[in-house]
Amino acid sequence: MTYDPSNIFARILRGELPMHKVFEDEKTLAFMDIMPQAEGHTLVVPKCPAADLYALPAEFAGPLLATTQRVAAAVKKATGAPGIMIAQLNGKEAGQTVFHLHFHIIPRRHGADLAMHAHKMEAPEKLAAMAEKIRAALG
Amino acid sequence: MTYDPSNIFARILRGELPMHKVFEDEKTLAFMDIMPQAEGHTLVVPKCPAADLYALPAEFAGPLLATTQRVAAAVKKATGAPGIMIAQLNGKEAGQTVFHLHFHIIPRRHGADLAMHAHKMEAPEKLAAMAEKIRAALG
Repeated sequence: MTYDPSNIFARILRGELPMHKVFEDEKTLAFMDIMPQAEGHTLVVPKCPAADLYALPAEFAGPLLATTQRVAAAVKKATGAPGIMIAQLNGKEAGQTVFHLHFHIIPRRHGADLAMHAHKMEAPEKLAAMAEKIRAALG
Repeated sequence: MTYDPSNIFARILRGELPMHKVFEDEKTLAFMDIMPQAEGHTLVVPKCPAADLYALPAEFAGPLLATTQRVAAAVKKATGAPGIMIAQLNGKEAGQTVFHLHFHIIPRRHGADLAMHAHKMEAPEKLAAMAEKIRAALG
């Protein structure tokens, strides 16, 4: 996906829009989501023009997850929420609305109401075929 | 959280349980979720005894996100799904069911039915207060 430098997180990174900063280092920035899914909903973005996860330069992977980890622990402590969901959406079909890669840190208190786990076992032959297809796609 | 070495992903890593492998390197392993949320649902785990994100050793952050990135692109290509959701759940209240840290890679085709984004702006003073609380928790 082409990166549009007028997206709101790019503008936040350039200091053109205000935000409630939580943490910043050389390669990452964490700030409050202004439309929180839950109290304490925080976002972590890399300081590079990556529209989605596929576009993230290798040198940002470690710093981005390290900041997400560090801030997630702080969000847990600050909110007292026992659960923390990390989510990162790629493509509008996955729910992405701002096309600058971002990790969501979302406090959760009430069990798996996002139903992250299905309860139906898939047929082994279907899984084997899909694994082969993905391995092939890895090249 | 204490790490229980009898959890199913630990057993998979030790070769005690079968899995449909997608990718493996020195620090990470990717394999098919046997109860997929969508066709192509793949998991990425670090090869270390971390129950959740908070427990991940620093040297695994880069490799873990790099593998997730690489496999996510392959899952997208293999399934043809336009959207990919990355999710990582910490604590049973967030929906975590296996207490070995894992990233979900979930193909998505039908818009934001997980309603990841709310549509209500939060009051700036509430966000500012929460940001302060999280910064304090960062220490």
